[in-house]
This record gives sequence, structure tokens and C-alpha cells, in this order.
Amino acid sequence: MARPVRVVVLGAGSWGTTVAGLAAHNTPTLLWARNSDTADEINTEHRNSRYLGERALPDSMRSTADLVEAAQEADVLVVGVPSHAVRSTLTQIANEVRAWVPVLSLAKGLEPGTRLRPTEVIAECLPGHPVGLLAGPNIAREIVDGLAAASVVATQDVRVATALQPLFASAVFRVYRNTDVLGCELGGVLKNIVAIASGMADGLDVGDNTRAMVLARGLAEMTRLGEAMGANPRTFAGLTGVGDLIATCMSPSSRNRRVGEFIARGMTVEEAVAKLGQVAEGVKTAPTVMELARDYNVDMPIAAEVEAVVAGRQTPEGAYRGLRKVAAGSEDEVA
Amino acid sequence: MARPVRVVVLGAGSWGTTVAGLAAHNTPTLLWARNSDTADEINTEHRNSRYLGERALPDSMRSTADLVEAAQEADVLVVGVPSHAVRSTLTQIANEVRAWVPVLSLAKGLEPGTRLRPTEVIAECLPGHPVGLLAGPNIAREIVDGLAAASVVATQDVRVATALQPLFASAVFRVYRNTDVLGCELGGVLKNIVAIASGMADGLDVGDNTRAMVLARGLAEMTRLGEAMGANPRTFAGLTGVGDLIATCMSPSSRNRRVGEFIARGMTVEEAVAKLGQVAEGVKTAPTVMELARDYNVDMPIAAEVEAVVAGRQTPEGAYRGLRKVAAGSEDEVA
Repeated sequence: MARPVRVVVLGAGSWGTTVAGLAAHNTPTLLWARNSDTADEINTEHRNSRYLGERALPDSMRSTADLVEAAQEADVLVVGVPSHAVRSTLTQIANEVRAWVPVLSLAKGLEPGTRLRPTEVIAECLPGHPVGLLAGPNIAREIVDGLAAASVVATQDVRVATALQPLFASAVFRVYRNTDVLGCELGGVLKNIVAIASGMADGLDVGDNTRAMVLARGLAEMTRLGEAMGANPRTFAGLTGVGDLIATCMSPSSRNRRVGEFIARGMTVEEAVAKLGQVAEGVKTAPTVMELARDYNVDMPIAAEVEAVVAGRQTPEGAYRGLRKVAAGSEDEVA
Repeated sequence: MARPVRVVVLGAGSWGTTVAGLAAHNTPTLLWARNSDTADEINTEHRNSRYLGERALPDSMRSTADLVEAAQEADVLVVGVPSHAVRSTLTQIANEVRAWVPVLSLAKGLEPGTRLRPTEVIAECLPGHPVGLLAGPNIAREIVDGLAAASVVATQDVRVATALQPLFASAVFRVYRNTDVLGCELGGVLKNIVAIASGMADGLDVGDNTRAMVLARGLAEMTRLGEAMGANPRTFAGLTGVGDLIATCMSPSSRNRRVGEFIARGMTVEEAVAKLGQVAEGVKTAPTVMELARDYNVDMPIAAEVEAVVAGRQTPEGAYRGLRKVAAGSEDEVA
């Protein structure tokens, strides 16, 4: 019998820790934590109190603060650091990861400046490795609590995705596969911006109809940009598109949704981000998405208003007034 | 200047009354109420307390309990009676409606036995009339309260839809148009069944991840059936598909969602329907949809579990266990 596949997850935030916990039920798993106290807590107390409170992690899950040790152990490498830290983290271990080891991204933001998606940054840092992602409507705390959820492993080569599925799956965590890496990844990036708009809707008390309209029209503009960039439009109707969008916009704990709500209730963007205390990818990604929208000549009125609010050029009230002003034509058209 | 178009709405339930109120801001509007007390209340007190509480309706909106009088006045006829009452109501006025008057359906259920959609029943009862529908993420009470929303007028002839748009639109109610009548109508019918599943999720406290999964996979099976029947799959990514689905599944007041929640908290279907006191179309439509799924050879695991619960052959807990058991393969595949 072959030695079991060892999964290494980089990044001990709430989602990285949760994914490591899923894998640890199936195979030997090591979680790299930037902070050695976090690694010690996981190894001795089997919890990550900063991100997941008192929730119990699997006893078999190990953690280390030694990035090189982690990289060398990986048969599968999962990148769970925030988008802005992917390049700097992987650059340190480019020569430590064995050839052919597949790399899965958990990140959901674009790299400022380069506008690269996380899988593209990974491919630059670790050339020659199969690169994909794990994404879907997955609120970390619910999964650690043992509630059911579904997710998607996306890789270009369907054989790689098929081999990776059982490493993360369980009786209550269904893992689908998809070969549209671009579409799956864009869904996770773009939904954060719609989630900020949805949070502003909550903060302004505009009602469930408007929130549903923002989600439906937001999904339409996500799909338009994705199709223009070469993704399969149907991917956006799946778990990584509308599924992740719904979970992010509806969950009280979603960071991007909360940032939007805080701003609508009167905070500045800086105050809202500070109150959150964690990364809200949509805030950083909004300007980059608007650059893409211009490059691909795609109209994205919701993203444009969110970007203007995040940049301080627009109020949430003004953004919603602006969205209502656009004339309603055919459903297929812009706006 | 031409005489203004007179809109007649049949059915003084919450949504029929609300649509009549929207039209009354733009053009002379008459609402037919089955109950003469309701008609009197609307005419004298400008409210419909049974369905919309103390909310104020436009002073200019008139109501009658005389079905023939209403039919004869119509330049545009809006059918807002429950699905099961469409045929019996229109049969009474087949000779009263003037030729060429467009007829818009508000109904969201299939006719048991014939399995016909409301617009098909209308076309049988009123042959020769342009038939379409008004649908979208529209919770009636929010609209009467003046909160913003968006909706879609769908007719096969785009010129008819374009002429109807301004009759219902306002500064806060955006009306789009679409020529995929089949897709728009199926969205409204099928989302009620997913809403029952979503309500069961609420009643079972299975969490936001599972609810998002049910919505995303529910949308996927709605789209599969629609495409098999000849609808444009993209329609299901619009306001009448995912938009209406989200509003219905998320709104505390949605009737189909509440029926699912009541059942999951231990009521029988009969008790849940009785407690609701209003029509929950999804309960009646579920068996008919499963007949369509078999005819078109489309796998609909969520609708199948909902139908089994509604028929008393399955418990809500068993339904969710069943949904989790289906093996996860490619996202494009069944289940």
C-alpha cells in the first residue's frame, strides 16, 4: 500500500485551519501558522482560539510555524494565506516544494498592481505544478461545528481534481469537481464586492426585494465579466458562483458583508476594516476589478458603486440612489 | 391625446393588490376582489386589511366585486388569482374581454392534471390575446411600504413588453423586459419548491452553508428542467430565476419558505398550510413538477425530496439525509 498523501495547509486563519481540519480526518495533515503561539495552541490544545474560538480541531492535525518544514512535507499544498501574502509566502519556499505536487488556492482576492488571480500568482511562484482551487459556500465556523456543506475542487486536469476530492470530503462535506478554474476563481473574487453591496443594503434597511435584486444583478455582472475573460458562464450558476455569493451575502459573520453594513451605518472604510480586525478581500479587490471591467469593456454598475464607496468618493445612500437611476431595459442588457 | 390605458387586476390577494397599487400611480386602475367587503374597504378606506394590514393604498385605485364589469373595462388584464383559480375565473369572462387586450399573469403554480403553466391556461381561456407575465423578487409588503424593487415583464413580442413596462414602473420599482416567457414563468413556479426546501433547512437549523448549497443546487435543477423544456438557461440567472429564488428563500414572510419551516418544526403538511392561512403554491405544484421531471428525463433530487415530504412519504430530516447521500461528482452532473 502506498504511503498516504500528506496535505500541508499554509495559513492558520479561520478557513485555512478549517480546511486542514477537514483533511486531517482523511490523511496526515500539517498546518503552517505564521504565529508560533497559534501552532503551539493547535498542537497542545487542539484549537485556534483567535479565529475559531473554543471549537475543537481534530487531534490528529499538526501545526508548525516553520514554513520550510511545512513546504518540504507536502504531497498536496493548500495555500490559505490572504491574497496579498501569497507571493511573498511562496517565494520563500519555491525551492522546497517537491516537483509535481499539486497546489490548491483558498484565496479570494486579486493581486494589486499585477491584477493576477491567486492561481496565476501561484503558477508564477511554483512553475510546473498543477494549480487549482477549493471554493464554495463555506462559512468556516459552521464546518468546524460539523454542519453540512458542499464545495468544489477546480483544476484544469479533471484527473487531478478527481484524486483530490476524497482528501477533503466527509459524510457532511461534499466536494464536487470542475475544470473551469478561471470561472470558479472569479466567482470567489467577485462575490466579495457584491457582498459589500449587500451589506450596505442591510445597513440602509432597504429590504429583501432590493437585496435579492442586488444579488441577481450582481451575479449578472459577475457572469458578464467572467464570460468576457473566457470563463464558462454556467460556472457562475454553481456552488462557486451563486452558491458562494448567497452564503457570503446572507451570513451574519461574512466579513465583506459586515464591512458594507458598518459603512452604511456611518463608519469610514478605515473604521469598518479596523472594527472587523480581519481581512475583507472585497475592499482591496474592488479597484482592481474595475480596472478589469474597463479593460474588457464590461459594464459593472454595482461594482462601480462599491468601488466608489470604498474609495471615499460616494456614500452608501448615493450608491443605492445611483443603482436605481439606471434605466431598466431588457434583462440581458447592461444594468 | 389617446385615452389612458386602463389596467384591470383580477384578484385582491397581497400581490394582486400591490400590483394594482403600482399601476394606479401611472394610469386608471381597477382591482377585482372576490369578496365585496374587500372591494368596499379598498374604495372607502384605501387599504386591504386582510392581506396588507394597515398599509395605505393609492386613493386613485378603485375596486369592484363585479367580475364582468372589471373584464369589460380592461385595456390590460392582469391575472392575480391563485393558479388553481385561473381557469374558472377566466372562463366566466371569456366573452367580456375586448380583442387584442394583453393579459399578464401573476400566478406561480402549474394546473394540476393538465400541468399547464398559468400563461398556457390563459391562452386556452382567452385565445388570440397576447399573453405574458410580471415576475421577479417582489415581496408585496415591502413594495406597498415604498421600498425599492425590480421586476420583469415577459412577453413573446418585445413591443408588447416595452409598451407595458411604464404602466407598472416607478422611481423605486424598476421593470425590465424579457421575451423568454417560458423561462421567466418556470422560474417563478420552480422556486417555490426550493423555497420549501430552504424553509426546512431553517427549521432544522442546518446552517447558512447548507442553505446556500440547497439554493445553488436547486437553481441548477430548475435550470436543467427549464432548458429541457426549451427555455433559455440564462433566464434562470436573472431576476425571475435566482432573484426571485433568493427573495423567496430569505424573506421571513415567504409563504412557501414558512410552510417548509413549519413542517421541519414538527407540523403535518395540513397543519402547516392551515397555520399559513394563505396559498403556498409549492405544496400543490411539487407533484406536478416531478411528473414533468420524469417526462423530460431530468434528475431533480431537491424537488423529489420536497415532493416526498409534502406527500407524507418522507420526513424533513430524512430528506436532508437523502440529499447528503448523493455522491458528489462533476458540478455539471446530476445532484
